[in-house]
Amino acid sequence: MARWEPNARERLVHAALDLFTEQGYEATTVNEIADLAGLTKTTFFRHFSDKREVLFAGQEIHARLLADAITEAPGPATPLQAVGAAVDALADTFTDDRREFAARLRSVIAGNSELQERAAFKRGKLAKAMTDALHKRGVPEPTASLAAELGIRAFHHGFDQWADVANQQTLTELVRHTLDELRAATAALVQEPPTII
Amino acid sequence: MARWEPNARERLVHAALDLFTEQGYEATTVNEIADLAGLTKTTFFRHFSDKREVLFAGQEIHARLLADAITEAPGPATPLQAVGAAVDALADTFTDDRREFAARLRSVIAGNSELQERAAFKRGKLAKAMTDALHKRGVPEPTASLAAELGIRAFHHGFDQWADVANQQTLTELVRHTLDELRAATAALVQEPPTII
Repeated sequence: MARWEPNARERLVHAALDLFTEQGYEATTVNEIADLAGLTKTTFFRHFSDKREVLFAGQEIHARLLADAITEAPGPATPLQAVGAAVDALADTFTDDRREFAARLRSVIAGNSELQERAAFKRGKLAKAMTDALHKRGVPEPTASLAAELGIRAFHHGFDQWADVANQQTLTELVRHTLDELRAATAALVQEPPTII
Repeated sequence: MARWEPNARERLVHAALDLFTEQGYEATTVNEIADLAGLTKTTFFRHFSDKREVLFAGQEIHARLLADAITEAPGPATPLQAVGAAVDALADTFTDDRREFAARLRSVIAGNSELQERAAFKRGKLAKAMTDALHKRGVPEPTASLAAELGIRAFHHGFDQWADVANQQTLTELVRHTLDELRAATAALVQEPPTII
């Protein structure tokens, strides 16, 4: 039977990010990550399918959190209000002690096109989780997808600002502010003459 | 010096899609693709960096086409009109004889998560090409990104309908119709009470 490894998952994520930051993503092996975390390669693969996945560890949890918040939003909430509640709930989990970690994670991903692809895929999965939850509330297409898209944009834009260690605002404040801005910009964009010229 | 290989690129794309459809993407090698196209592996790698890229051959051309159409849109065109002209221009290149090919391409991509990731990345690149071209017209953020997003959504949704061989409409008609629908749905979505509940 496998030994119980306290916080194995978290230790692996931190070790991976340390190594990716120091010596680059490409140059780092799963063995080195496991070593630095004081764990075995077998333990690594019990938690992650490969080196890349260690950086996207939160995907399932984040998707569930967004979907649950939409499901639990009050009955009369509009689609965009339900999405606002969802990104609020996700933002609330990023407490200020995670800001430096987020900044390093963002910088590792920005330096590697394979990781950028993976990040874009995660973004799509989170948007889909919100879209599906909106469908269950009876929100039709394309409204559900559009609302989810605005929410995910607000979250990521807010996250980029928050991951700047000089920033003093909470992620929740930044995401709310961004969602309001996006809504205003969208309203202006679609108040237009017909699209055919 | 390399021999001149007439339509090498096109032959490789068709051979790859044939093999991916018949025996699956994973099971197909670059050697088999080159063989079926009557070309060498060296010729393959002169055109594509790997097996996956053969399916995303049009990315650069599509991005340039979208950007150019936005740049060349009349001065008074609104952001969404410029985007409408861009997706029109791209849709016009998909003539009806490409419909069956598109249907097969879509089906191969749908069956493989690595290809789906790559497709999401291409989608992002095309949106970025439109966004950058809108910036050059003086359209600020987040308006430029939002307009590009609506355009790319309209294009892909239209493309999905078009790739159904039973469909009789042209891709241009489908994309225009989708963009109008998206605009109406977006307008309704953002005409709402504040997002905080």
